[in-house]
Amino acid sequence: MTTSDELELISANKSFGGWLKRYKHHSQVLGCDMVFAIFLPPAAEEHDVPLLWWLSGLTCTDENFTQKAGAQRVAAELGLAFVCPDTSPRGTDLPGEHDSYDFGSGAGFYLNAEQAPWNKHYRMYDYVTEELPALVREHFPLNGREAISGHSMGGHGALVCALKNPGRYTSVSAFAPIANPTQCPWGEKAFGGYLGDDRESWKQWDARELIAAGARVDEIKVDQGDADNFYQDGQLRPEALETACQDTGIPLTLRMCPGYDHSYFFIASFIDDHLRYHAHHLRSG
Amino acid sequence: MTTSDELELISANKSFGGWLKRYKHHSQVLGCDMVFAIFLPPAAEEHDVPLLWWLSGLTCTDENFTQKAGAQRVAAELGLAFVCPDTSPRGTDLPGEHDSYDFGSGAGFYLNAEQAPWNKHYRMYDYVTEELPALVREHFPLNGREAISGHSMGGHGALVCALKNPGRYTSVSAFAPIANPTQCPWGEKAFGGYLGDDRESWKQWDARELIAAGARVDEIKVDQGDADNFYQDGQLRPEALETACQDTGIPLTLRMCPGYDHSYFFIASFIDDHLRYHAHHLRSG
Repeated sequence: MTTSDELELISANKSFGGWLKRYKHHSQVLGCDMVFAIFLPPAAEEHDVPLLWWLSGLTCTDENFTQKAGAQRVAAELGLAFVCPDTSPRGTDLPGEHDSYDFGSGAGFYLNAEQAPWNKHYRMYDYVTEELPALVREHFPLNGREAISGHSMGGHGALVCALKNPGRYTSVSAFAPIANPTQCPWGEKAFGGYLGDDRESWKQWDARELIAAGARVDEIKVDQGDADNFYQDGQLRPEALETACQDTGIPLTLRMCPGYDHSYFFIASFIDDHLRYHAHHLRSG
Repeated sequence: MTTSDELELISANKSFGGWLKRYKHHSQVLGCDMVFAIFLPPAAEEHDVPLLWWLSGLTCTDENFTQKAGAQRVAAELGLAFVCPDTSPRGTDLPGEHDSYDFGSGAGFYLNAEQAPWNKHYRMYDYVTEELPALVREHFPLNGREAISGHSMGGHGALVCALKNPGRYTSVSAFAPIANPTQCPWGEKAFGGYLGDDRESWKQWDARELIAAGARVDEIKVDQGDADNFYQDGQLRPEALETACQDTGIPLTLRMCPGYDHSYFFIASFIDDHLRYHAHHLRSG
């Protein structure tokens, strides 16, 4: 076990002239060892660079985005670092933790759990907004400017992190986010388990509800495939986000992508747009 | 089980405006059901397109390249289809077939085996040069022009397929190919098992030896990472290919890529160059 200010290098791969590195560290917040990935563009060898947080979806680890999204090419070109956290605590082996793909391991939902036994470890919100940012700022050549994006459960996480921390991120975007988790089966299961029966307490972890309660960001960019089965099944509800943004005047660019599904093939097809969008705001915002 | 002229669609994902599709079919040559992937660029909806064969390395299936190489973006731009076969027969369960990563399943080496029991199924050369090409030409909008590339064991396969079939492919390239398998541990194990003890018979499946025996192609493009542990361990031997090309006047562009390893992060970093190289030859060759 490592202490929280120690990073153990797991692997380093040269990628588009930069370096993709995976590290293990001990998380005090989560009470377990965690792995994350960071991509450092070639520019990071010359000067400090801005950082994009990428939050992944259900069942993912830090590896899905780095292997499948094709993001390194444009991140290298733009001089943009990115960090991919894991999607839940690991190795805690709580009762039932590994029984389903949409609750427990691989399904932390980027919230702070309130119900036992989850509240001891499942504090992914504090991990991705406080502990891990402090750690990467200490160890890597970052200039302090940060943006955030994610996919599905991670799109929910990106929206919630940005809405709960106004001014913290220069920009926020999402691919097929769970935009209104208090009103979909995935969210009902996860929030019920992690937060308990009081549905009022769920609203602080729901992008649509946060906006309705007064949270604001300058703008939001969302891509959604119209052939996404989880969209069709009502798990994602981008329309609820759209209505909330319209009601409150938050500029939302919601692009429906015809024929695209929920997979990383969808993300890869549009990641360039998101990286350029964030790079623009990171430079000028 | 399907007959050889039937294709069973396993999945279809929209990707960069084109379609990535996986199919199952019964291979008469291999005596088993096989899966392959094909990417059809947007242009294939308008007219027949040229085709790049991609042969993958040890342990891979049809999925590694499609998920990790980031090839669809430029293939879509160039109007280039590509097909990824699997790397061995599947489901035959021969004795010892699944015992090691570098022999048997996932390790067909793109040759026709001569030794029992392998010779009944392990005929990947005939599969990737005859049966599967006939099948895809019958079912997809292809214009008959074909190029070939691959990685590691698949780089060996691409070189051997091109050298044994002059004029068949407009161009050939490889990433970190096993360029001289008769002289490296991987090749000695595989060729000994599939072909038997007669080392003379091995030479027909070795790019360096084929060139020494008179086989010719117009030119060869190879990328090799200098931090590739398999290169450092003598498994790949690009220098043997280089010497053979120098001795016989075959133009070889061997690019040593500083800091790059054997992974798909290396392939992704340079796949654009290879796709543009092949597209140029497919148009003009």
